[in-house]
Amino acid sequence: MIATAELLGLAVLAKPKAAALCTQQKNRLLDAMAKALLMQSEEILAANAADLEAARGVIAPVMLDRLALTPQRVEAMAEGMRAVAALPDPVGRTLEESMLPNGLLLRKVRVPMGVVAIIYESRPNVTADAAALCLKSGNVCVLRGGKDAIRSNTAIVAALHAGLEGCGAPKTLVNLVEDTGRGSAVELMEARGRVDLLIPRGGKGLIRACVDNAKVPCIETGTGICHVYVDAAAEPQKALAIVDNAKTSRPSVCNAAEVCLVHREIAEAFLPLLAERMAEKNVELRLCPRAARYIAGTPAGPDDFDTEFLDYILAVKIVDSVEQAVRHIAAHSTGHSEAIITEDSAAAELFCAAVDSAAVYVNASTRFTDGGEFGLGCEMGISTQKLGARGPMGLAELTSYKYILRGDGQIR
Amino acid sequence: MIATAELLGLAVLAKPKAAALCTQQKNRLLDAMAKALLMQSEEILAANAADLEAARGVIAPVMLDRLALTPQRVEAMAEGMRAVAALPDPVGRTLEESMLPNGLLLRKVRVPMGVVAIIYESRPNVTADAAALCLKSGNVCVLRGGKDAIRSNTAIVAALHAGLEGCGAPKTLVNLVEDTGRGSAVELMEARGRVDLLIPRGGKGLIRACVDNAKVPCIETGTGICHVYVDAAAEPQKALAIVDNAKTSRPSVCNAAEVCLVHREIAEAFLPLLAERMAEKNVELRLCPRAARYIAGTPAGPDDFDTEFLDYILAVKIVDSVEQAVRHIAAHSTGHSEAIITEDSAAAELFCAAVDSAAVYVNASTRFTDGGEFGLGCEMGISTQKLGARGPMGLAELTSYKYILRGDGQIR
Repeated sequence: MIATAELLGLAVLAKPKAAALCTQQKNRLLDAMAKALLMQSEEILAANAADLEAARGVIAPVMLDRLALTPQRVEAMAEGMRAVAALPDPVGRTLEESMLPNGLLLRKVRVPMGVVAIIYESRPNVTADAAALCLKSGNVCVLRGGKDAIRSNTAIVAALHAGLEGCGAPKTLVNLVEDTGRGSAVELMEARGRVDLLIPRGGKGLIRACVDNAKVPCIETGTGICHVYVDAAAEPQKALAIVDNAKTSRPSVCNAAEVCLVHREIAEAFLPLLAERMAEKNVELRLCPRAARYIAGTPAGPDDFDTEFLDYILAVKIVDSVEQAVRHIAAHSTGHSEAIITEDSAAAELFCAAVDSAAVYVNASTRFTDGGEFGLGCEMGISTQKLGARGPMGLAELTSYKYILRGDGQIR
Repeated sequence: MIATAELLGLAVLAKPKAAALCTQQKNRLLDAMAKALLMQSEEILAANAADLEAARGVIAPVMLDRLALTPQRVEAMAEGMRAVAALPDPVGRTLEESMLPNGLLLRKVRVPMGVVAIIYESRPNVTADAAALCLKSGNVCVLRGGKDAIRSNTAIVAALHAGLEGCGAPKTLVNLVEDTGRGSAVELMEARGRVDLLIPRGGKGLIRACVDNAKVPCIETGTGICHVYVDAAAEPQKALAIVDNAKTSRPSVCNAAEVCLVHREIAEAFLPLLAERMAEKNVELRLCPRAARYIAGTPAGPDDFDTEFLDYILAVKIVDSVEQAVRHIAAHSTGHSEAIITEDSAAAELFCAAVDSAAVYVNASTRFTDGGEFGLGCEMGISTQKLGARGPMGLAELTSYKYILRGDGQIR
């Protein structure tokens, strides 16, 4: 087993190689890695079967499903690699250019971050996705997956390495941390000067541990307590369709809604419609006392407006105004995605200006917060912080910039 | 004395007020604060005299100089406020706009960070500068200066508050932490969900403590081990002028050079010129063994190529190639600013592409890395990290963005 410190050393050495790859080279490597995944599909599936065998009875069924690979899922990983190859290369783009008064020619140029470390949990497809996104953005990745998926991840990375080496590229462009103990995660969090960016992908506990302990720049991702606010001037059927979609189309994801705020003037008309629709979809309602006057449901407990349920549960609260909705969101949201449903453009303007979240919607579902939907072509996660990337992170969000200044002897 | 937690609470409440100020309002507040600084100049100078009195014999003379205010320095603070008022407002700018295939209109808009906390040391002018930059970028600032400057900072902030309140604006737009003990700094570093961005400004120890302990997004600033590489194809007089300027024009600042790398082919011709010029300027040379064959100086110790001297000391090393210069920089630089002096455009290209620092110069002094010089008009510090702002941080670098999406019932 290679020690994590040694692996990090190799990753740092590979940085200039990754940064120097031209677009064509990167696309060729992505294509070769995709082919190698398909070629080694059997080995990957066998390793995954061993992971599943070891995990059965140990982890929850929903986690087992996330861990499981099928021939179709391996094909989807390869397809994902090719999709990343088709995206424009963000590296090398001139972001700004100017001639300073002293004759210095200043260029601000997009460059890779360097070494990007990703700490994730049981889904082995993250291994291939993250490797592809990092390579295309000129970064060296250090992948630290979960214990349950180590055999699958090892087999996937073996295939990616075969793809790289088949093209004469060093396998240290993609690095898998073999040690899945807590110590290796801490080592990545503390690798100052070696890890340029740390991205945790997974549950709240993992993200919290990274944000709290990281001594390297870290992006907080993914937790979403998303709100849909049904304004007094909402069109009820539109509101109903959006709340339904935001809650039930995929409750386990971060852009699903957890809370519905309803203006008191529309409560009497809207809440019975909502209760009926949610009952059809087997959604449990957690109601504030005022909402409980109109419809039946569980009384909301003290934490119900601060919980990412990721389940068929919706907290419902009546508010007196769009301002109160904004204040509730400021106090309880994780800054991911919020929506207002209204036909009143002044209310919509106020909501858009005042809500401080990565994505703010007018008359649309929060479920659209996604790199693919936003036209980024792909996604490394959704940032809920404001330093660096915010919202969906595509290729450009995995880069930095530098200033290049050309002179002819200028001194100050 | 107001508790830091309470102050942070007030700052969070002021966020929407700061974000909602229009450009004209912000400029009016800056002008009023500038006037108030001048009006209360006597009180500020008296408070500063008390600070100086208390600090004399306790802190080093150079620190006393940084702490000292004069009528001219107070005027310069007021002038700085007006200069910030004259800069363009970054907030509200549309960065991208597109119509998604499903009809959603997506706009990516620049927004303030929110609450920006600045931890700094003895220079009281930072108080006024940081307040101005934060206000113009729509942020609420929480200023935590050093113990030695607390009377001066309190008097400056009293003037700023008078300016704000004279215009009917809340004084909680600008907040000074009254407790200058270590505990209050730690409180800011750990204020998750309340501090959106933490910027340490000061010495290496302070910056290291913030980066290591922060649980909020933090920007590493300022430490500069900057290199000037004199290539084989350098024009010797140009190289000499640039090394001289980079080293001696202001040795105490972060963009001053600490290390001169010299290609072996030019060493015999260039080093005697360098030795002579540095002797004239009373610069001590710390020489690698090969350089010591050509000129006299102190033999470089084990740390001399990893030290930000901030003094009249220059470490000198002979390298065999531009590639070796790049590798030395990768191993020893802090990622601030590096320069190559050469008439060979291929060497310049290689250096610019391979050196991973915030600013890379061809035939110019590293001393230009500065918000004013780069045309940003001002500066909150120089970021040496790659997440978020890199290089000089002006107003735009104190902002984030959000996505606003307008639809007509879109669901996914």
